[in-house]
Amino acid sequence: MATKLTVDGNTAAAHVAYAFSDTAAIYPITPSSTMAEVCDEWAAHGRKNIFGQVMKIAEMQSEAGAAGAVHGSLSAGALTTTFTASQGLLLMIPNMYKIAGELIPAVFHVSARCLATHALSIFGDHSDVMACRQTGFAMLSSASVQEVMDLATVSHLATLKSRVPFLHFFDGFRTSHEVQKIDAIDYDDIAKMIDMNAVKQFRAASMNPEHPELRGTAQNPDIYFQNREASNKYYDAVPEIVESCMQQVYEVTGRKYNLFDYYGAPDAEKVIILMGSGCDAVEETVDYLMGKGEKVGVVKVRLYRPFSIKHFIGAIPKTAKSIAVLDRTKEPGALGEPLFADVCTAVKEVGLDVTVIGGRYGLASKEFTPSMVKAVYDNLGEKAPLNHFTVGINDDVTGLSLKIKEEIDTSPAGVSRCKFFGLGSDGTVGANKNSIKIIGNHTDKYAQGYFAYDSKKSGGITVSHLRFGDTPIKAPYLLTVSDFIACHNSSYVTRYDLLEGIKEGGVFLLNSPWSTVEELEHQLPAQMKNTIAKKKIKFYNIDAIDLGGKIGLGSRINMIMMSAFFKLAEIIPEADAVKYMKEAIVKSYGSKGEKIVNMNNAAVEAGLTGIVEIKYPESWATATEGAVPVVVPATEYFNNVVKPILAQQGDNLPVSAFIDNVNGIVPSGTTKYEKRGIAIKAPQWIIENCIQCNQCSLVCPHACIRPYLLTDEQVANAPETFVTKKATGKAYEGLQFKMQLSPLDCTGCGNCADV
Amino acid sequence: MATKLTVDGNTAAAHVAYAFSDTAAIYPITPSSTMAEVCDEWAAHGRKNIFGQVMKIAEMQSEAGAAGAVHGSLSAGALTTTFTASQGLLLMIPNMYKIAGELIPAVFHVSARCLATHALSIFGDHSDVMACRQTGFAMLSSASVQEVMDLATVSHLATLKSRVPFLHFFDGFRTSHEVQKIDAIDYDDIAKMIDMNAVKQFRAASMNPEHPELRGTAQNPDIYFQNREASNKYYDAVPEIVESCMQQVYEVTGRKYNLFDYYGAPDAEKVIILMGSGCDAVEETVDYLMGKGEKVGVVKVRLYRPFSIKHFIGAIPKTAKSIAVLDRTKEPGALGEPLFADVCTAVKEVGLDVTVIGGRYGLASKEFTPSMVKAVYDNLGEKAPLNHFTVGINDDVTGLSLKIKEEIDTSPAGVSRCKFFGLGSDGTVGANKNSIKIIGNHTDKYAQGYFAYDSKKSGGITVSHLRFGDTPIKAPYLLTVSDFIACHNSSYVTRYDLLEGIKEGGVFLLNSPWSTVEELEHQLPAQMKNTIAKKKIKFYNIDAIDLGGKIGLGSRINMIMMSAFFKLAEIIPEADAVKYMKEAIVKSYGSKGEKIVNMNNAAVEAGLTGIVEIKYPESWATATEGAVPVVVPATEYFNNVVKPILAQQGDNLPVSAFIDNVNGIVPSGTTKYEKRGIAIKAPQWIIENCIQCNQCSLVCPHACIRPYLLTDEQVANAPETFVTKKATGKAYEGLQFKMQLSPLDCTGCGNCADV
Repeated sequence: MATKLTVDGNTAAAHVAYAFSDTAAIYPITPSSTMAEVCDEWAAHGRKNIFGQVMKIAEMQSEAGAAGAVHGSLSAGALTTTFTASQGLLLMIPNMYKIAGELIPAVFHVSARCLATHALSIFGDHSDVMACRQTGFAMLSSASVQEVMDLATVSHLATLKSRVPFLHFFDGFRTSHEVQKIDAIDYDDIAKMIDMNAVKQFRAASMNPEHPELRGTAQNPDIYFQNREASNKYYDAVPEIVESCMQQVYEVTGRKYNLFDYYGAPDAEKVIILMGSGCDAVEETVDYLMGKGEKVGVVKVRLYRPFSIKHFIGAIPKTAKSIAVLDRTKEPGALGEPLFADVCTAVKEVGLDVTVIGGRYGLASKEFTPSMVKAVYDNLGEKAPLNHFTVGINDDVTGLSLKIKEEIDTSPAGVSRCKFFGLGSDGTVGANKNSIKIIGNHTDKYAQGYFAYDSKKSGGITVSHLRFGDTPIKAPYLLTVSDFIACHNSSYVTRYDLLEGIKEGGVFLLNSPWSTVEELEHQLPAQMKNTIAKKKIKFYNIDAIDLGGKIGLGSRINMIMMSAFFKLAEIIPEADAVKYMKEAIVKSYGSKGEKIVNMNNAAVEAGLTGIVEIKYPESWATATEGAVPVVVPATEYFNNVVKPILAQQGDNLPVSAFIDNVNGIVPSGTTKYEKRGIAIKAPQWIIENCIQCNQCSLVCPHACIRPYLLTDEQVANAPETFVTKKATGKAYEGLQFKMQLSPLDCTGCGNCADV
Repeated sequence: MATKLTVDGNTAAAHVAYAFSDTAAIYPITPSSTMAEVCDEWAAHGRKNIFGQVMKIAEMQSEAGAAGAVHGSLSAGALTTTFTASQGLLLMIPNMYKIAGELIPAVFHVSARCLATHALSIFGDHSDVMACRQTGFAMLSSASVQEVMDLATVSHLATLKSRVPFLHFFDGFRTSHEVQKIDAIDYDDIAKMIDMNAVKQFRAASMNPEHPELRGTAQNPDIYFQNREASNKYYDAVPEIVESCMQQVYEVTGRKYNLFDYYGAPDAEKVIILMGSGCDAVEETVDYLMGKGEKVGVVKVRLYRPFSIKHFIGAIPKTAKSIAVLDRTKEPGALGEPLFADVCTAVKEVGLDVTVIGGRYGLASKEFTPSMVKAVYDNLGEKAPLNHFTVGINDDVTGLSLKIKEEIDTSPAGVSRCKFFGLGSDGTVGANKNSIKIIGNHTDKYAQGYFAYDSKKSGGITVSHLRFGDTPIKAPYLLTVSDFIACHNSSYVTRYDLLEGIKEGGVFLLNSPWSTVEELEHQLPAQMKNTIAKKKIKFYNIDAIDLGGKIGLGSRINMIMMSAFFKLAEIIPEADAVKYMKEAIVKSYGSKGEKIVNMNNAAVEAGLTGIVEIKYPESWATATEGAVPVVVPATEYFNNVVKPILAQQGDNLPVSAFIDNVNGIVPSGTTKYEKRGIAIKAPQWIIENCIQCNQCSLVCPHACIRPYLLTDEQVANAPETFVTKKATGKAYEGLQFKMQLSPLDCTGCGNCADV
């Protein structure tokens, strides 16, 4: 019986990499860092790999060094792995050619990430791994957290048998950071699958002073070509070896994989071909469209290199009339992106009579939803389908983007979808991860969590997207429809469209100091009130800041909000939730003493009892007045580009919005127009205590505490509440002093409290 | 009137790069180093670019640093270039994405080179540039030294107009190091062509504290994709911009280029598509085959990225039935190599009804000759042509290689082909470069020189391949047929097949101490004598070592051999040759004083008069006896692999010879079986002077001077000529001392003479 794990994709990869490896040479880079981190942690705790040894991990000075160390370590006979992404992977390319050329078994686990071009992006696409497709590495793609577990295993098994090194990759963030409840492959099972003869051969072939050999020679035009061709048979053998390792995994897990997996109608006429996390979005859409009688299907590419034309052609239904190949990368100047070119080449080679169209999607983790998938199938149905299209954006410049004609909801019945708006470092994400673990580990339910951060990290917005259901959850995209939405920061009500996509009759939980309809009438924007009333939302408020303060937890409201969530979302019985939360508290805080445990237990109770249901009037449905967002006069660039981004509406910006800044060079000094107002507590000037030392101003990292000197005339013209005191110091004679806070810029970080 | 230059491809590229660039950030790597070297030299001499400034060159700590410096320098508004190849280029990839993403005009000049895989190789193929095809750089390919001059200019012109950076590449060694007489594009003409508005815009857009901007931002999933697509129109514009710049170059030079150039029968049925130096070999073969009535043609790819499908399809004759796409790279695991995949994609996209076959050739400067080209056309004529073939090797393992059924000689009439065997550092290559310059600069004749070194460099073999003719010389391959062959080192007669490919009635000039038929009867191997007599070779000997010694030039025989070459090869009248050689001597050595000049003039005379024609007997045609090479008992690996390589027969080794060492790991300690015997002077033990200090042994870098202690018994068993002296020192009482030379290992380096 396989162990159930509720983990992210990185941890799943690390689980396997750790099992198979003696050593890892690493350098951290988002979104891969977690893989090395958890290996490091396991090693520190003495966890044993399948050889009964603790992994040895070395952090190098860069990924170039890590790749060199991997090559050296492999040459010395240690089974060695590494974890990387993006530019880090690019730095490994020279060594990858060497490792492949020397036919050394190895697996690089890559959380595929966008490459820095006009701008960097830490998010996921296939630009980095596609830059390695010519190195001679085999490339195996995992589309979900479960697949990471399974295909990472296949990679390690197959590299040993084939001697060809493997790049095992999965989508950065979407898969690397998505938390899912999956079946682990236990180390005992791995130990049964591994080819120990191959391990022995690998170790025997290593550098050894007992049998010196010459490596790294220089070859001239006379023999290099012949020697390079001598490796053909190793590559020819890879597809069958990978198939056999997939069969091994199937026999242990019951989960079946092929080099190319077809899903859909056996008589499909329209077929999408892609790899990575997008596969599951297409699969979900195929189910939906087949339900409507459409003849559609999808070929999921697993083994991208070596590309087995035989297996590929075998996976396409004979009824296929048109194919859309989706690439999650952009290669400017190429006829088409790489998977598209490969498919065209294969189709041309065997003379298959089928239309092939190529498109780009999901660059830098751009969302890829069932509605977009449907647009791709719709395009295939056109008389003259758009080729080299994009999907997921509005390209109003080169006109390449597909129109999304219909927003569809393909979620299977019985899935609970819960969204949480938090402030970076407020504990929301951590609490949600705990919620998933509690539900995943204590029940038969499946759980999925994805956490969207903005780049401000601490103090920025976080949006947690959680799904719970009775069957494995596949949807690899953000929530488009939500049953439950919680907002943990009251300043968000005027800044974001919090209720976008909430279901008719859904639950909205707000953390705010406003517990009466009257206050909310005043504090909520009109549009939010409209939505609440029109959609008959069950609306609750909780003043978690106040409750937390009383308990002694200060601004740490996560336990209170988690408890409130369990009560309102009703995914598991309240009593069970309370029990599991309290067990988790003992596990997490037990070592910190009874007081902390008790405070957290009190928070659980406060969450259950502190909720106030808001009995809003029906008139909210047509309300036209309410809170309005702060508007600061700003530049055109700020208003047209930055402002929508800050309002979480950047996805809606068309290509034309970037024409003036196509090269990634943008005006500076735009932060001053951004008035966030996120501080839940702000400093107050205690005029009678002030000695005018200005230290409070000095320690404010956000420059929100600002000392001023004023003339009598200025003071005379100031409003009544504008208090000042006589400036000290001979130089300032006749002037008044004032310490002024800019509350909309204050983040409430509390640095000033230490002065 | 354009200046004529007799230069190599690197110098041609540097000529253009220097003209257009304010700065260059570089790191040297073979075969690109010359480009930076000559720029550095020109800068040191104050040469001005077209802006009237001296180029500023900075050598960084690696190519990664060079690429970063290029990016920074460009951002600061300096027109910046760089020169690199192979792994050096790989280290630039991360910055290439940035430079392209930021749409900064720049040209990287790359002498395309093989990448280190199972072994490194410094030689030429397209593996390195193909590893950059996804970076967003435009890629323009030059196929000859003249094209380097012309298309380097196009690259610089087009990048400024398009803002897309260019990778301008040409084949490492074959083009970078081939010396050709070409037309330069003068700086005045370049200054007329450049778009100064674009230069102004580039400089105005640079980083400047007067108008600060924000670069290098991080973008999130919401906007990265749209911003990336905003660059489409810049790439869409490149093909037309490159065409217009080609037109500018045409107007100045009369040399016409297109994005894809077709050459051959207008009604061709078989078409080869390729890029790089191989184009000229195919063109020569097309002429030959068309002369025989075959309907063949070739599409030469110039602008590889952006790949303009419109221009590409337009270049293929409508009559084409089958296409062979040749790639000078290998991507193990790919369905086919990159140009092949692009052609398949293009053909599939427009629905062209034509068979497309892919093949690999010329890895690591593997020869690509007209006979191989014919084999490619022959394959296209087969009922079931071999796909994914190789040509130029014998693949007896995977059976992918094409058979060369017929060796053809496609040289146009009137071309003189001269081959020289020299010893690294003996001055042969330098003298040949001078010969080309003399003929190129003083006559209307065209000249081409290519110099093959082995990796031993100093003390290794060099083979110079020279062609002279009345029309531009295109043959981008080694001599397969020679009118004149010179051997500058007498030890080669038993080691190499010196006369391979010599024409009936051709000239053979040997430098040896053997000036009589009797001596030569004894010193030459039987096979060589057979060839000389059967092919009625005009055979001359010269004892250049002796002549040089008498003049006072020691072992520097290059001037003597050059003079002898001019006399015997009769490419230009002897009197003219003497005049030009003497002028060159004054130019080269004038500053070193009259004595040196006179010695070299004496060498010229000695070369003319020192030649002895060998009146060999007809019986040589059937001689069965003669000198035999030294054979040392060795390992199987040495005999089967290393020995043919050392005999310059490595090209004939089949793929199966490398099966046991496919990963590039080979047995060590093979040098000991290699008995080169290349020393023209070897040290002699002067027994009466010897104080047994052993210093001579210590300074011998090749460990050929070996001290021994012997017992009386050993001495008694030694041959008579084996002299010894009493060993000094108490510890050695009763023993005899001997300093023994290993003459076959001695290189004649002369280190021991200094002791």
